[in-house]
Amino acid sequence: MSDLPAEFELIARFFKPLSGKGGLALSDDAAVFAPPAGRELVVTADAIVEGVHFLPDDPPASIGRKLLRVNLSDLAAMGATPLHYLLTVSVPRATPAAWFEGFVAGLAEDQAAFGISLLGGDTTSTPGPITLSATMIGHVAPGKALHRRGARAGDTLWVTGTIGDGALGLLALQGRLADPDGFLAQRYRVPQPRLGLALAGIVSAAMDVSDGLVQDCGHLCRASGLAAVIEAADVPLSPQARAAGRRGLCLTGGDDYELLLAVSPEHEPALLAACGSLQLTCIGHFAPGPPGVTVVGEILESTGWSHF
Amino acid sequence: MSDLPAEFELIARFFKPLSGKGGLALSDDAAVFAPPAGRELVVTADAIVEGVHFLPDDPPASIGRKLLRVNLSDLAAMGATPLHYLLTVSVPRATPAAWFEGFVAGLAEDQAAFGISLLGGDTTSTPGPITLSATMIGHVAPGKALHRRGARAGDTLWVTGTIGDGALGLLALQGRLADPDGFLAQRYRVPQPRLGLALAGIVSAAMDVSDGLVQDCGHLCRASGLAAVIEAADVPLSPQARAAGRRGLCLTGGDDYELLLAVSPEHEPALLAACGSLQLTCIGHFAPGPPGVTVVGEILESTGWSHF
Repeated sequence: MSDLPAEFELIARFFKPLSGKGGLALSDDAAVFAPPAGRELVVTADAIVEGVHFLPDDPPASIGRKLLRVNLSDLAAMGATPLHYLLTVSVPRATPAAWFEGFVAGLAEDQAAFGISLLGGDTTSTPGPITLSATMIGHVAPGKALHRRGARAGDTLWVTGTIGDGALGLLALQGRLADPDGFLAQRYRVPQPRLGLALAGIVSAAMDVSDGLVQDCGHLCRASGLAAVIEAADVPLSPQARAAGRRGLCLTGGDDYELLLAVSPEHEPALLAACGSLQLTCIGHFAPGPPGVTVVGEILESTGWSHF
Repeated sequence: MSDLPAEFELIARFFKPLSGKGGLALSDDAAVFAPPAGRELVVTADAIVEGVHFLPDDPPASIGRKLLRVNLSDLAAMGATPLHYLLTVSVPRATPAAWFEGFVAGLAEDQAAFGISLLGGDTTSTPGPITLSATMIGHVAPGKALHRRGARAGDTLWVTGTIGDGALGLLALQGRLADPDGFLAQRYRVPQPRLGLALAGIVSAAMDVSDGLVQDCGHLCRASGLAAVIEAADVPLSPQARAAGRRGLCLTGGDDYELLLAVSPEHEPALLAACGSLQLTCIGHFAPGPPGVTVVGEILESTGWSHF
C-alpha cells in the first residue's frame, strides 16, 4: 500500500514543480514562510469559473495565467509586490492530463514573469464546471498600501492602458464581433496587471477596474465620499476597440484589469514620471457631492457587471 | 448611478460584518495586515464542493463551519495558531438570501470559537454546484512548525479522537446507515480541528487525517522514508462507530480531521501531558523498510479517498 492514489500523483506530477521554498514541495498540510521583515502583507483571493470568467475552449495555459493575473491586478491596485500564491483547482474527474499540462505551463510562465511561487492548495473533483481560485500574497512598506478611500474633490481621475478590450474580446470569442488580429481576445484571456508602479505618496486613491469602468469608479466614489465625472470621449480605447464602435460597452464591460487612480493636480507630474512609458490617461475628475458617477458624452445601458 | 449592484449589496450585507481589522471592511482590492513580529506564517487552502464534500441539503451554517474547520485542521497539523482567512464563494444566481444568512452565521460562530477574522475574498456566480474555498493564515514560532517528515523507526503512532465517524456520518446522511442520535452525521458536518496542542519538540512528525487513516499514514511514511504498522483493533472508534460494525470503512474513509502523530517512546509522557483530556490512542509504530502501511487484523478493500 505505498502507491500514490491518482489525486496525489496528479499533485506530484503537475503542481509540485511550481512550489517554492516555503511550499515544502506541497507535501505538508500547509506551507510555512517567513514574511519579509518590516513589511506589511497584502492578500487577496479571486475565483474564476468556466463559462463565467473564462470560456470552455480557452487554452488551459491562458486560464492559468488569467487566474494569477486577476489576483495580481488586485495587488497592483494596493501598490504591493507579489510574493506567493495558493491555488484551489476543482475539475471534472475526466479532465485529461493535457489540460493540466497546459494549465500548469501557463502558471509556470507567469510565475517566472512576476517572480512568485506556489505555496500550496487543493485539487478536488467537481460534477460541475471547472472552478479555480487563487490567493495571492504580497507585501508593502508599512502604511504605504494604496486604498480606494482618500480621493479629494479637485483630484483628477486617471486610468492606465486602454479600456474595453476585455469585454469586446469576450464578444469576439463568442463570435459576436470581428477581431481580425486577435488582439481583443488576447486582452480578455491574458490581462496585464499593472504592477511595479511606485504610486505611494503620489495618488490619493487607487483600485483596479475589473467589473466595468463606471461601476468600479462608483466604488471609488463611495469609499471617498465624492462624486466623479468621466468624460466619455477621453476614455482611452485601443485602435481595435475604436474600430468596434462600441464605446458604451467599453465604459461598462468587465475584464479590463487596468488601474483607476485619483491624483491631486500638483502630483500629476510625479504620476506621469512614475508610470514611465505606460499609457496613462486623464478621463475626468472628482467633485463634492453625493457618491456617484456622471458620464459626459455617452448614454449607458448599464453600469457594469454584477454576478447576482 | 450610485446604487450598489446586487453582488456588492450581498457582500456588504453578509460578508462585511465578518471582516476584521486588516480586512479594510472588504472595501479595498486586497487586505493589509501586519504579520505577528518574529513569527513564521503558515498558510493552507482547501476547497469544498456541493455533492463532493458536503451534501445539497446540509444546513448552510454547517457548510460554513466545515469550510473553516477543514482548513483549521491543516493548521493544527502544523502546530500553528490561526489568525485570518480569505474566502471564495461560487454559488448559483438563484441562491436565496436565507442560504447566505445561514452560511454566514456558521462562519461567524466559528470565527468566534477559533479567534479568526475574514480578510477578504470573492463572490461569483456559477452554473454548477456551490463551490467554496478558504485560505487560512496562521503563525508559529520560527522553526517550530510540525512536519510530515521526521518520523523515526521505533516511533509509536498515535491518533487523536475517534476515527471513522465522518465516513459513517456520510453514509448515515445518505440513508445507508442508522444514526439514532445523529452523532455520526454531526461528525461529518462539523469536524473538530485539534488546535492548541503544544506539540513542537514532542512529536517527530504530524499530519491531519482527512482522506482516510491508512492512506494518510502512507503519506507520513513516504515523507519520513519509513514503513508503518497499524493495529486495526487499537484504532479508536466511537461507541456509535463500533455499533455500526464497519471497522474497515473507518480505517479508510475520509473526513476524520484528527491528528496522526509520530512520537519517540521517551516523549510519550510529554505527549500525553500536552493532550490533556483529549482522547489520544497509540495505534501502531514505525519500522525501517520501504514506505508503506501494513494493517494488522483487518482486510481492507481500498486505502482511502482519491478525487481522481
